[in-house]
Amino acid sequence: MAGNSYGTLFKLTTFGESHGEAIGGILDGCPSGLTIDLESIQKEMNRRKPGQSAIVTQRKEADEVQFLSGIFEGKTTGAPIGFIIPNTNQKTNDYSHLKDTFRPSHADFTYEKKYGVRDYRGGGRSSARETACRVVAGAIAKQLLSTIQINAFVSSVGNIFVDKPYQELDFSKIESNPVRCPDEEIAVKMEAYIKEIRKEGDTVGGTVTCVIQNVPIGLGEPVFDKLHAELGKAMLSINAVKGFEFGSGFCGAQMKGSEHNDLFNPDGSTKSNLSGGIQGGISNGMAIYFRVAFKPVATIMQKQETIDKQGNSVDLEGKGRHDPCVVPRAVPIVEAMAALVLADFYLLNKIYQ
Amino acid sequence: MAGNSYGTLFKLTTFGESHGEAIGGILDGCPSGLTIDLESIQKEMNRRKPGQSAIVTQRKEADEVQFLSGIFEGKTTGAPIGFIIPNTNQKTNDYSHLKDTFRPSHADFTYEKKYGVRDYRGGGRSSARETACRVVAGAIAKQLLSTIQINAFVSSVGNIFVDKPYQELDFSKIESNPVRCPDEEIAVKMEAYIKEIRKEGDTVGGTVTCVIQNVPIGLGEPVFDKLHAELGKAMLSINAVKGFEFGSGFCGAQMKGSEHNDLFNPDGSTKSNLSGGIQGGISNGMAIYFRVAFKPVATIMQKQETIDKQGNSVDLEGKGRHDPCVVPRAVPIVEAMAALVLADFYLLNKIYQ
Amino acid sequence: MAGNSYGTLFKLTTFGESHGEAIGGILDGCPSGLTIDLESIQKEMNRRKPGQSAIVTQRKEADEVQFLSGIFEGKTTGAPIGFIIPNTNQKTNDYSHLKDTFRPSHADFTYEKKYGVRDYRGGGRSSARETACRVVAGAIAKQLLSTIQINAFVSSVGNIFVDKPYQELDFSKIESNPVRCPDEEIAVKMEAYIKEIRKEGDTVGGTVTCVIQNVPIGLGEPVFDKLHAELGKAMLSINAVKGFEFGSGFCGAQMKGSEHNDLFNPDGSTKSNLSGGIQGGISNGMAIYFRVAFKPVATIMQKQETIDKQGNSVDLEGKGRHDPCVVPRAVPIVEAMAALVLADFYLLNKIYQ
Amino acid sequence: MAGNSYGTLFKLTTFGESHGEAIGGILDGCPSGLTIDLESIQKEMNRRKPGQSAIVTQRKEADEVQFLSGIFEGKTTGAPIGFIIPNTNQKTNDYSHLKDTFRPSHADFTYEKKYGVRDYRGGGRSSARETACRVVAGAIAKQLLSTIQINAFVSSVGNIFVDKPYQELDFSKIESNPVRCPDEEIAVKMEAYIKEIRKEGDTVGGTVTCVIQNVPIGLGEPVFDKLHAELGKAMLSINAVKGFEFGSGFCGAQMKGSEHNDLFNPDGSTKSNLSGGIQGGISNGMAIYFRVAFKPVATIMQKQETIDKQGNSVDLEGKGRHDPCVVPRAVPIVEAMAALVLADFYLLNKIYQ
Repeated sequence: MAGNSYGTLFKLTTFGESHGEAIGGILDGCPSGLTIDLESIQKEMNRRKPGQSAIVTQRKEADEVQFLSGIFEGKTTGAPIGFIIPNTNQKTNDYSHLKDTFRPSHADFTYEKKYGVRDYRGGGRSSARETACRVVAGAIAKQLLSTIQINAFVSSVGNIFVDKPYQELDFSKIESNPVRCPDEEIAVKMEAYIKEIRKEGDTVGGTVTCVIQNVPIGLGEPVFDKLHAELGKAMLSINAVKGFEFGSGFCGAQMKGSEHNDLFNPDGSTKSNLSGGIQGGISNGMAIYFRVAFKPVATIMQKQETIDKQGNSVDLEGKGRHDPCVVPRAVPIVEAMAALVLADFYLLNKIYQ
Repeated sequence: MAGNSYGTLFKLTTFGESHGEAIGGILDGCPSGLTIDLESIQKEMNRRKPGQSAIVTQRKEADEVQFLSGIFEGKTTGAPIGFIIPNTNQKTNDYSHLKDTFRPSHADFTYEKKYGVRDYRGGGRSSARETACRVVAGAIAKQLLSTIQINAFVSSVGNIFVDKPYQELDFSKIESNPVRCPDEEIAVKMEAYIKEIRKEGDTVGGTVTCVIQNVPIGLGEPVFDKLHAELGKAMLSINAVKGFEFGSGFCGAQMKGSEHNDLFNPDGSTKSNLSGGIQGGISNGMAIYFRVAFKPVATIMQKQETIDKQGNSVDLEGKGRHDPCVVPRAVPIVEAMAALVLADFYLLNKIYQ
Repeated sequence: MAGNSYGTLFKLTTFGESHGEAIGGILDGCPSGLTIDLESIQKEMNRRKPGQSAIVTQRKEADEVQFLSGIFEGKTTGAPIGFIIPNTNQKTNDYSHLKDTFRPSHADFTYEKKYGVRDYRGGGRSSARETACRVVAGAIAKQLLSTIQINAFVSSVGNIFVDKPYQELDFSKIESNPVRCPDEEIAVKMEAYIKEIRKEGDTVGGTVTCVIQNVPIGLGEPVFDKLHAELGKAMLSINAVKGFEFGSGFCGAQMKGSEHNDLFNPDGSTKSNLSGGIQGGISNGMAIYFRVAFKPVATIMQKQETIDKQGNSVDLEGKGRHDPCVVPRAVPIVEAMAALVLADFYLLNKIYQ
Repeated sequence: MAGNSYGTLFKLTTFGESHGEAIGGILDGCPSGLTIDLESIQKEMNRRKPGQSAIVTQRKEADEVQFLSGIFEGKTTGAPIGFIIPNTNQKTNDYSHLKDTFRPSHADFTYEKKYGVRDYRGGGRSSARETACRVVAGAIAKQLLSTIQINAFVSSVGNIFVDKPYQELDFSKIESNPVRCPDEEIAVKMEAYIKEIRKEGDTVGGTVTCVIQNVPIGLGEPVFDKLHAELGKAMLSINAVKGFEFGSGFCGAQMKGSEHNDLFNPDGSTKSNLSGGIQGGISNGMAIYFRVAFKPVATIMQKQETIDKQGNSVDLEGKGRHDPCVVPRAVPIVEAMAALVLADFYLLNKIYQ
């Protein structure tokens, strides 16, 4: 209820502030007998972690996950999987100037008003550091769903777009560049633009596209818990996300039915896939794809006018080490959330068969 | 879990197929002592019901809601509010040709595969008829939230867009035309276009924008249950929805931080509102606004090739009475779902104070 | 949250007051393809309904259930099963004297204080009439769990006890007498005692024992959702219940470990069954048995002093048609709740395999 | 769903096996601004911990809780409270003989069958060590409910009973003896008996009674989530519990209505309290009291015959350090669970006002 859990059967609950001793979580409902590949979990963590390339924040965080329960002799036991990720690189002093100040387009103001008290150090609970726990749980979900392929990538940075449909992209190229864009020519342009933006002390938004292949038919529940509705919620719950569309998305709203309908092949697959792999909220076996919009990071290295708790005008200049563009590091988070949603529906679908 | 409930504290559970005896629902968690205005509920029902104008489906359905419990001497008692809406205008014969046929871009195929059995009459549970129950519950939510204004309207039909920001629109004009578009010049064009599309036996998509004003600060929960994440899920759960964006949305993903940040006024309000009234998942007191994309209705009055259960090729031509464009009737549904989300967070926020 | 739902995967939500137009419910999560035997549902309803014998209340209620959705051509479709039971025999005038009066040991006082408003007619939502909906859903659960036998019976009325262990009872005798006691000699005594009590204008308590046989190993979840913990909650949620014990129960608290431990047979069954078929919260394949204590019905046909809303002293004499002893009619309710609990865990257990 | 969470608004999720690195939990939904008294939490932990007196297990465990989040400058922030309790005294070798053996009346057999894999060291997840986390969360719940008094005590050990009603007991004496029995004469007998039982290498059961005073009127939800139903579930979820009764309990089932009804005083309080402070599932302001039955600890220091995984007969003799009687250490656990239930309903009740 208080917003720190995701999923129903495959359920992640997280805790932790960016500048506390540790963040962590409990993954409950993972079936027993699943062999856990710890290296592969750490690999996902490394894709998210700060300092991994020249175009992301230069904070150094080890981001090493410690599992405390639920795994015995390399396998899940059906018991809840407890884990922590120590916070090793907090520079609390970086934030002392924010104690009484509300940063524009941050959660400082709303947390203060909602809770009356606020851990102002680095955003506290509202910091995107919390997403590290999502990546841990998502990596386990991926192992549970080993036959399903989940590939996310950066599809735009500012006004620079990948303009090919997902069918024409080579996903093996995603990790070949620091932007995580499978179109290598576009990737070069994006990288250059992000560097330019950083020099300006500014930030820029972008989009991440995710393609999920080899999904079994039948995942998702009708009416309120449609598969795309849960995917949408999962994505919109990631920090800085402003929009979600799947299949034809907003473009579909400009089309006619005669153009938009996906006609069937004799085997039940469809000739086109404007539906994005989902009909009536339930997966139809075609590739699921969706696009997620991220706003520019709110912390900029330029002077801004803002207010303090008393409503006094205050000048604010960004300190600390921040991302000029969040989408390259958001790629593994998008994948993790997609994996959590699918794992939940995958387990749920076992019931009704 | 099976997808027929929405909300946690203010919780709607619905049942019913388009061609069964009745649809209905239970609204649980409505506080006691709320005076219920039945006329105002019926008025919302009438905004959704078929046959209301020349540009929507000409089916005639009374859509009269009968309350069976939870209201005593005109007030809620705190007990669950049970209600039914009889199905009075089913023409089951209209659908007998669909018994073994999968309509393109409908839920026939996925329901058949997921459940093994399917009420094929008019889409059964997957029919948008189910949204009538959402409108009933949403109308009660609006009465609970009487100080909050929720206004949805059609912001595009096909390629015809309202190109003014919400601040420049006069919401009192929304109900002045059958399209439910507050820009009356644009409304005329939209109406003409929908009529043209209908003559072609085709359908067209569109978008609905919703603006919520006078929202208390503090609604929404951090991390996974952010206010916009729940709004997104609620909207994406409506039939035919393909996308959701709030505040700056997908445009925001093209912007720089220096352009996008909403600077504060001394009173805590903001000079701009690209955030869309939500920071860190929590309402900040500014207007919440979002846009919802609807695909074109899949049932068209043109011949399409499709398959039957055995994978044989079958010719299909739309029968029955269908909407050429769903967005005018979707307006009250969008408002209803918005009201349900807000009511839930409004109650939840009482706890933590 | 507001207390009108039971279960997670196999989930019943109910509505309705004793003197409204109808009571009813939605059963969500029932797997598709289950053939529904309507007669067998009505048979369970008849076991619960008033007027069935000389020792229960003489109210006449048809208690006929109408299914509105979720069943198509005799089978469940996976869609929610909506149903109503019209209230046909309300004599609202019987209760007008209670409008401002709090009956002793009834819920009048607490409902008034909690909700500020109260449907005083026949107890409103707090009436045991609501349990009719539990019996409907429980009857469907029994059909889902067709290989499991659930037998409840009256094990005591006042000080008259069945003093044989369940292994020595012939459950086929339960329905052979109006008390629903399988020990026919004891049944005669109980029946005579209940008649005597009724003549006195008094009421008496009793216990119901339930034995569940042929339960698969593995139902129940560890730690907080132990199988017996859910059974206990389910039973304690029935009107008038004051206690629950399973296996050795309160007697077990007087025993030594060397007496109490159930030693294994080579096949994993146990020589004794003081554990009551549950170890660590999980079924072990032995019979589950438990006992439920019901207090005497609070409405008696004797003059009692009580208070009204203003705290004034008021004389009260029971009117209407009430049960002198509730346990004979509670038997099918206990079975229904047991079936709901098992159905939920049965579905849940499919996930983790 | 997987059984490791308790509560809805005030929600505890726990993890950890007895012989893993640590156990711990996340308490979500605690309102912000609550001053946390860490000493008082540790004091509750000490009441539960092993080695505290001559009549409990002589294992030495520090049982020191480390809070990792949710508390800032001594106050809760509204963010989830993450905590761990390191396991410092595991002697894993003590359990190697159990790898393939099922101990009688333990959860070994059912866990093995349910999950296929099992952490056999000290019971793993089924160990009562997990209850330490309940005590942490319960201690915080007590601080939230500072005006409510929750007192549990040992009311019987084997056949030695406290035979006074709760109104005649002096709760300040509970902690004056190692048995935690407020009747000091009875306590001496209980203590002697437990020592005798231990010498025999045996164990014995007992009961814990809990009295909750100064409860606001209106806590609890009608129908399925009655206050006593949740208390029952909470108690039955504690290891070794076999029964629960509140108010008149099983004795009430032998009484007549004319004896059992609690007549009102003019102020709404009642002359007697056989209802146990709850009417229709909702607190009425009188003291809530209930009794919980604990079976004898299954691990005895006597030779028992049992089976291994292959069904072979195996001789088993208890090793390690175990409690001869669990009830003295169960007292703080009963209080903790009562506090969790009340905290949840306390928050929930704020909504509907």
